[in-house]
Amino acid sequence: MAHIPVKEGLPGIRGLVHFRPETGKPLYELAQTLLRTPSTLTEAEREIIATYVSSKNECVFCTMSHAAAARHLLGSDSEIVDKVLENPTNAPISDKLKALIVIAGKVQRGGRIVTDEDIAGARSLGATDMEIHDAVLIAATFSMFNRYVDGLASFTPTDPVAYSEMGKRMAEVGYVPPAP
Amino acid sequence: MAHIPVKEGLPGIRGLVHFRPETGKPLYELAQTLLRTPSTLTEAEREIIATYVSSKNECVFCTMSHAAAARHLLGSDSEIVDKVLENPTNAPISDKLKALIVIAGKVQRGGRIVTDEDIAGARSLGATDMEIHDAVLIAATFSMFNRYVDGLASFTPTDPVAYSEMGKRMAEVGYVPPAP
Repeated sequence: MAHIPVKEGLPGIRGLVHFRPETGKPLYELAQTLLRTPSTLTEAEREIIATYVSSKNECVFCTMSHAAAARHLLGSDSEIVDKVLENPTNAPISDKLKALIVIAGKVQRGGRIVTDEDIAGARSLGATDMEIHDAVLIAATFSMFNRYVDGLASFTPTDPVAYSEMGKRMAEVGYVPPAP
Repeated sequence: MAHIPVKEGLPGIRGLVHFRPETGKPLYELAQTLLRTPSTLTEAEREIIATYVSSKNECVFCTMSHAAAARHLLGSDSEIVDKVLENPTNAPISDKLKALIVIAGKVQRGGRIVTDEDIAGARSLGATDMEIHDAVLIAATFSMFNRYVDGLASFTPTDPVAYSEMGKRMAEVGYVPPAP
């Protein structure tokens, strides 16, 4: 049971945003801007970074839901998500994305451990300033969402079907706050 | 030097928001809503939670700037900030705020370690559901800001006077994005 009285049946972040819509509005706007507005990183690549960081923070709700969104976006290549979660180094993704995931993984542990070499490495593989910025901010943002969801013990469904439907909505509709 | 080319002289979060105003807008709105809109927690109490979490994340810019904002808001009681940073248990603050700082400190380390007992303890000292929610989200939000600022190695002034001026502006004007 959640630590505060959230509306029954609204899982993860949605229950919390329904409880406090004033903070929910900028939180959804941040997710939508980072993960859905036009970018040289694909929506699937950005969801993969979010999923990877959430898994490192051991946030079941965020990992399962963003993995489902990434799988939906990848279609027949959906197994990439599981390969990244297992070991990004061996996953069938671009070297640029691997370098951005290394940076995101460091941000998850603490921003101060990102080095000039990490950044230069990503840049040498084609990462732009904006892609580096967004990878860092996605990692920081999910370090927030993970703590918000778990710190308040928000409802975490256990049925995989629930996540599959959630992922479809996240991929197709994007990040839109729940109705009041 | 920052990892990406931000505008010279804009410190911390401001340089990053100037670089990427689309994400800056919801970030400032989130900070303003959490730290400045009417609440049963005073603005100083909320800034103290933000400062405490930032110090645990060893983010010099966020710790120095939010400590300065809290000191400005506290006026002649400004030494409370340093006492909380030294040891919240012995600081001259309410037992309710101490309990919320314990929860915030756990969220900083990871949301999953907050217990039902932590929440019940805060509630028995008068904390409302909204105060518990906001303490958790402030801690989660600063776990993001700290990673964002340090992960991109944003400009961190060393002159204490710079922070004193920043704190005054944060206290009196609030969280308003820099001009484009």
